[in-house]
Amino acid sequence: MQRYFANTKKDNLLFLNKEDIYHIKTVMRMKQDDKIEVVFEEKLHICKLDSNYNAIIEQILDSNIQKKQYILCIPVLQEQKMSFILQKATELGVDLIIPILTTRSMVKVTGKETQKLERWKRICKEASEQSKRLTIPKITAIKKITDLDISGLKIVCSVKEKNNTLKKILHNNKKYDRIVMVVGPEGGLTELEEQSLIKLGFIPVSLGKNILRVETVPIYLLSILNYEME
Amino acid sequence: MQRYFANTKKDNLLFLNKEDIYHIKTVMRMKQDDKIEVVFEEKLHICKLDSNYNAIIEQILDSNIQKKQYILCIPVLQEQKMSFILQKATELGVDLIIPILTTRSMVKVTGKETQKLERWKRICKEASEQSKRLTIPKITAIKKITDLDISGLKIVCSVKEKNNTLKKILHNNKKYDRIVMVVGPEGGLTELEEQSLIKLGFIPVSLGKNILRVETVPIYLLSILNYEME
Repeated sequence: MQRYFANTKKDNLLFLNKEDIYHIKTVMRMKQDDKIEVVFEEKLHICKLDSNYNAIIEQILDSNIQKKQYILCIPVLQEQKMSFILQKATELGVDLIIPILTTRSMVKVTGKETQKLERWKRICKEASEQSKRLTIPKITAIKKITDLDISGLKIVCSVKEKNNTLKKILHNNKKYDRIVMVVGPEGGLTELEEQSLIKLGFIPVSLGKNILRVETVPIYLLSILNYEME
Repeated sequence: MQRYFANTKKDNLLFLNKEDIYHIKTVMRMKQDDKIEVVFEEKLHICKLDSNYNAIIEQILDSNIQKKQYILCIPVLQEQKMSFILQKATELGVDLIIPILTTRSMVKVTGKETQKLERWKRICKEASEQSKRLTIPKITAIKKITDLDISGLKIVCSVKEKNNTLKKILHNNKKYDRIVMVVGPEGGLTELEEQSLIKLGFIPVSLGKNILRVETVPIYLLSILNYEME
């Protein structure tokens, strides 16, 4: 069954946005009484369509999943790589994405922040529908490294680090509820940036012998977190 | 230093192919005496260029990495997804890729096998250079499910399977030298295909609660294997 996210509810009706209604009518060619899944306030609703393409609630399924919170901090990259990371990170259960400005990011953002943010949010919403999530990952405005003063188990991917493997860190820190991951740009974070993060409590971590592209790293990290939580 | 793979050697000279020489001349704008890394017979050679863009060996570094062999069997997908999987799987250390025909693969291959195979090999070679591997993953001709009679620890990703997690399987089978992974197409393998694989000794495995796209699954699997080998 096709899944959508709703923003508003009135009595037993859930209201979808224009783009979703367009998708239902034109792409899916659904009609009155056809069934869809609608997520509202993190609950899954089995609904049927009325004649105006509103969703009539027939059944509410509670999720009740208590999972650790995954926060991913990534440099602002070119849009193709950015879309890729947002899509895959959404599939793999990321909760919050923080785009960061780093010295070696090559992408200009000045004056384009709002437009980019809207685009990124749309990608995450669509990926959430396709991967049948009950939540859409949140994305913050673009931040600086020094803004990353967040609590939780905090790691920063480092090419200099040789001993601290992800395995060691995850096995020595089993009791966290939230993990914050910082991925650097092509060329890595500068020494200064890495030191700022270490001061904020981030642990440098080696990702092993393979040389991974920037956009592969978030998928690598989230795959392993999912695996460890199995 | 830029890395290339050589096919032939004579005395202290390694010979690169035309495309690589074009890359060195036109893209990298390198000149005589500039240094490059050349991999030949799984050994890394530090070389300098002669006036004909052949590589003069200055130093040979032995690798001596004993790792488990990763074999990935994937359905023939549309070229964009295929490139993506080949690139990322190469970054993550895959050794052998077996493209398979499955009932629910939608891509037509008849008459295009040779052309596709050449393209896939080129993608793997380029990805190997970029991720500084000492080997290029091999790709076989397109095979059928019933051809997958290979020895090793063998798993098939299954949406029906609920109990057998990858973690259980890897922890209960520590002594394998080779792991063979089968990923199904969009819509999954048919019951018949899954049964054929089980008869060949494949263990069905659940990948957890997230709904992953076909092209995400190989990265997920290889990330975890790398993590477990750390």
